[in-house]
Amino acid sequence: MPSIEPTTAALAHFIADSRWEDIPAPVRHEAKRALLNFVAAALGGSQDEAIGHAVSVLQPFAGTPQAGVIGRSERFDMLNAAFLNAASGNVLDFDDTHHPTVIHPTSPVAPPLLALCETMPLTGAQLLHALVLGIEVACRLGNVVTPRHYVRGWHITSTCGAVGAAAAAAKVLRLDPARTAWALGHGANQACGLVESLGSMAKSVSVGNAARNGLLSALLARQGFTASAQTLEGPRGFAQVMGEDPQPEALTAALGEHWEATRNMLKPYPSGVVLHPVVDACLALRSRHGIEAHRIASVLVRGDPLLRQRTDRPGPGSSREAAVSIQHSVAVCFLFAAAGVAQYADGCVHDPEVRALGARVRVEDDASIALEAAEVCVELDDGRRHDLRIDHASGCLVRPMTDAQLEAKVRSLAEWRQWKGSVDGLIDTFWQLDQAPTTAGIMLLLHA
Amino acid sequence: MPSIEPTTAALAHFIADSRWEDIPAPVRHEAKRALLNFVAAALGGSQDEAIGHAVSVLQPFAGTPQAGVIGRSERFDMLNAAFLNAASGNVLDFDDTHHPTVIHPTSPVAPPLLALCETMPLTGAQLLHALVLGIEVACRLGNVVTPRHYVRGWHITSTCGAVGAAAAAAKVLRLDPARTAWALGHGANQACGLVESLGSMAKSVSVGNAARNGLLSALLARQGFTASAQTLEGPRGFAQVMGEDPQPEALTAALGEHWEATRNMLKPYPSGVVLHPVVDACLALRSRHGIEAHRIASVLVRGDPLLRQRTDRPGPGSSREAAVSIQHSVAVCFLFAAAGVAQYADGCVHDPEVRALGARVRVEDDASIALEAAEVCVELDDGRRHDLRIDHASGCLVRPMTDAQLEAKVRSLAEWRQWKGSVDGLIDTFWQLDQAPTTAGIMLLLHA
Repeated sequence: MPSIEPTTAALAHFIADSRWEDIPAPVRHEAKRALLNFVAAALGGSQDEAIGHAVSVLQPFAGTPQAGVIGRSERFDMLNAAFLNAASGNVLDFDDTHHPTVIHPTSPVAPPLLALCETMPLTGAQLLHALVLGIEVACRLGNVVTPRHYVRGWHITSTCGAVGAAAAAAKVLRLDPARTAWALGHGANQACGLVESLGSMAKSVSVGNAARNGLLSALLARQGFTASAQTLEGPRGFAQVMGEDPQPEALTAALGEHWEATRNMLKPYPSGVVLHPVVDACLALRSRHGIEAHRIASVLVRGDPLLRQRTDRPGPGSSREAAVSIQHSVAVCFLFAAAGVAQYADGCVHDPEVRALGARVRVEDDASIALEAAEVCVELDDGRRHDLRIDHASGCLVRPMTDAQLEAKVRSLAEWRQWKGSVDGLIDTFWQLDQAPTTAGIMLLLHA
Repeated sequence: MPSIEPTTAALAHFIADSRWEDIPAPVRHEAKRALLNFVAAALGGSQDEAIGHAVSVLQPFAGTPQAGVIGRSERFDMLNAAFLNAASGNVLDFDDTHHPTVIHPTSPVAPPLLALCETMPLTGAQLLHALVLGIEVACRLGNVVTPRHYVRGWHITSTCGAVGAAAAAAKVLRLDPARTAWALGHGANQACGLVESLGSMAKSVSVGNAARNGLLSALLARQGFTASAQTLEGPRGFAQVMGEDPQPEALTAALGEHWEATRNMLKPYPSGVVLHPVVDACLALRSRHGIEAHRIASVLVRGDPLLRQRTDRPGPGSSREAAVSIQHSVAVCFLFAAAGVAQYADGCVHDPEVRALGARVRVEDDASIALEAAEVCVELDDGRRHDLRIDHASGCLVRPMTDAQLEAKVRSLAEWRQWKGSVDGLIDTFWQLDQAPTTAGIMLLLHA
């Protein structure tokens, strides 16, 4: 049965009334993991060309420095800092992914909180609580419009992220239910971002806007700036306008019982998710059989037709293309025994050995293989063959990254960026964040 | 035949190559009228509660004061100034309206130019030229997705306005065609705004964003921040995602021959356009027959069913509701012989005489009457009846406001706001803007 209570209002009540004590321990832990994963992804992305351009463009218009930018020395006003941190967190596509919406929820939702914690007293639990609620709202809204919203061409991380960011900011600003509903309305009214922009720097603008405008939404609502109280479910509201056959009841069904943070996956590799079982298989084959790359005659990958359609991309020309190239991904696994950010950087993309090995990689459709699975067969120059099938890629919901693997990811991103901060200090701080009486100093840890 | 050249690229070329000499004189004059009408509407809207709230919320994050806000004493960085001026220009719904899209093009398009002219050398002709091109792009994009885009719930002024604003800013920044295409892409990628927000302050946020983000789009493109070169027409681009049965060829058909500025209407009254023939009729009846309001027994209005559906709203509770109330509109015409901003202000909305007369107003459907026409019949307490039919409301395309009527509108808005600046100086400056060697001083004229 669809909910009969107006959903924007019900959601606003839930956000305003929610207590940290109500959040189950596993959900709290997922929030810590999502946040640590996000700051690592943002550290990794912080020197990307798109972020550098955005800093240059925004600086002449920025207000009093109030808030830090992860991995950089500049400080900005809160709105611009939220924009830049969201863009950095997402630019490598190494942030979290919600199943089944493919929203990357933490990149839009966390930055408003990281900005606010520098300008108001906020405990670690308050910050994590707001993050849980923001993820909840973004992903539930995604559930309402999935799958047609993304298929039509909406960059769902940006669109639903703006509303999630508004919810999170509303919580720490302690808005009442009516003002929280306005904040959600302002978030929905500012939702934007086209899939056409993926593959160019433009995607970073809508992700940045989601965080910035989500924060602005809550600040406007606090000031008394009104919005429709049914902007999510109304006849000309988000679900109807941006969805097709939307399911508004998904916004409120089992609210407080089921938590979307438990369906949030962390990526072990900075490549397209469909490539992850392939990478798992190649790394395992190389390690088990001591395969030397120069002995490989050919590699045959079999998988769901979508795997081929999305990743059969020999000779990628850029880092972004390499991240969705099966040829590149297979080659770096066998050549370097790794498929991390360094292996998708431009230097590696243009490496002749990578290109030569990539040219010996083929993909075949096998509709009997699930999308999160893949089969890899390597043939060596002496005719020997080695096969491996991976049923569930690492990082997927049934085989999530362990905390130790997440720590290793944080270390590798920090190292890749030659970050001078203390990685141990960072990891310890985030694991203990729920106990922190203040978060005033955490952005200092993330400085350039 | 649909255009075969990629449309974003073709449009970008047109913008970059366009010369002021190519703009026909009537189009140049319409640009001056649109701009003068816009600044008057913004003067009128500048003290609205929504604008005051926006100023309060944005001030703590604003950068170095670079640009003025029409009718106010504050100065802001260019991006925030563009936001605030666009919101002010549109907040009273007294800005221009493009037929048939119902886009209010100048509110999003002019503010980036008014901000830029304070920070770079710009002649009056350059400013007007960019305004013509921005209006052209916003309205052509509107033609691509009209009518389904607005019907579905997109606030078309905000969505198409962002792209028009990007085009205008790209022109004055002298971007090359490739960067102009990126600017258009960034505008489209940031397009947002829901019809659900009309009737609340939230509509001002998306209109403000259109101007701010349009300016940001051009600044990003200038810096080398890339976007898809087919963000308007691509498979996951603006037309496909935000339109239904879109007509992308409308973007480029007869480009440089037909100008959309010639289909841009100026409103004589700050009420819904469908009410304008009714207002015309009531004002004429009162004047011709010396009708005294207290003698009126009843007023019957007949019109297209849409007139009743949109405006049969007795006892409106706010200025915004009064602007779409036929009862309120008829009553003020007979009581005050005027239907300007003062007659839609809160004091008038709650006036017992207005309410009492409004209660004697009825609307009847007559599908034989066109939407831009109406018939009004007044019955007096002695049984006398007076009728009048208006076929074309003043302000519509076949009966546009004259320049003199526009000047009177400017004066009445300035007077209503008790603006201390020189109205004569303002009007003279804008009529001569195409001859102005510099525009550096025009925002000083519009100060509080």
